[in-house]
Amino acid sequence: MSVGYHCIWDVYDCDESKISFIKEVQLTLNELVKETQLTAVNESYKQFSPVGVTGVILLEESHISIHTWPEKKFAAIDVFSCKRFDDSKMENMILKLLGASKIKTNMIKRGV
Amino acid sequence: MSVGYHCIWDVYDCDESKISFIKEVQLTLNELVKETQLTAVNESYKQFSPVGVTGVILLEESHISIHTWPEKKFAAIDVFSCKRFDDSKMENMILKLLGASKIKTNMIKRGV
Repeated sequence: MSVGYHCIWDVYDCDESKISFIKEVQLTLNELVKETQLTAVNESYKQFSPVGVTGVILLEESHISIHTWPEKKFAAIDVFSCKRFDDSKMENMILKLLGASKIKTNMIKRGV
Repeated sequence: MSVGYHCIWDVYDCDESKISFIKEVQLTLNELVKETQLTAVNESYKQFSPVGVTGVILLEESHISIHTWPEKKFAAIDVFSCKRFDDSKMENMILKLLGASKIKTNMIKRGV
């Protein structure tokens, strides 16, 4: 059996302006939800001072989260989904949305 | 560099009564937050019909999530934290809280 896929992205050399404040991070997270065609149930964010954001969107049967470290130009994203993504499409989308140059993907099949 | 640890647990043969409804799942998630000594910022849950729950607690700089499939006696849990956990202590705690008999752990160092 398998209940779904948990995809984890470590994103390096991000554009700091894209990961410093809730407004931009929220836009990015919602773009990714739209791309995965999942349904958002609820979203919550926390702004760190002076910069840095933690955000989670609860999805139908899954979730997407982001944690950012602007001072390291780094963002950690994960999505749990019942269906498999188009990995390279998602990678390219994340790189574009965060103005990043390097991404490391870890796809884990859950409940195997 | 490393920004933290992302620990993923696949939990098998759970007691269905522990993973069917929000009330019990919320207790479990909050017990785990207490154990990891992290600080909850916000929590949200979704109840599926007839049974099954998705829950996420936004933590300071991190998150914990759970997704349950009572019909498969399965639960998927993950915690992102800045500090390393005591793996076996957490495993035993999850097994006990969910009345489960088998757990698979995947510890991922993020931002390496």
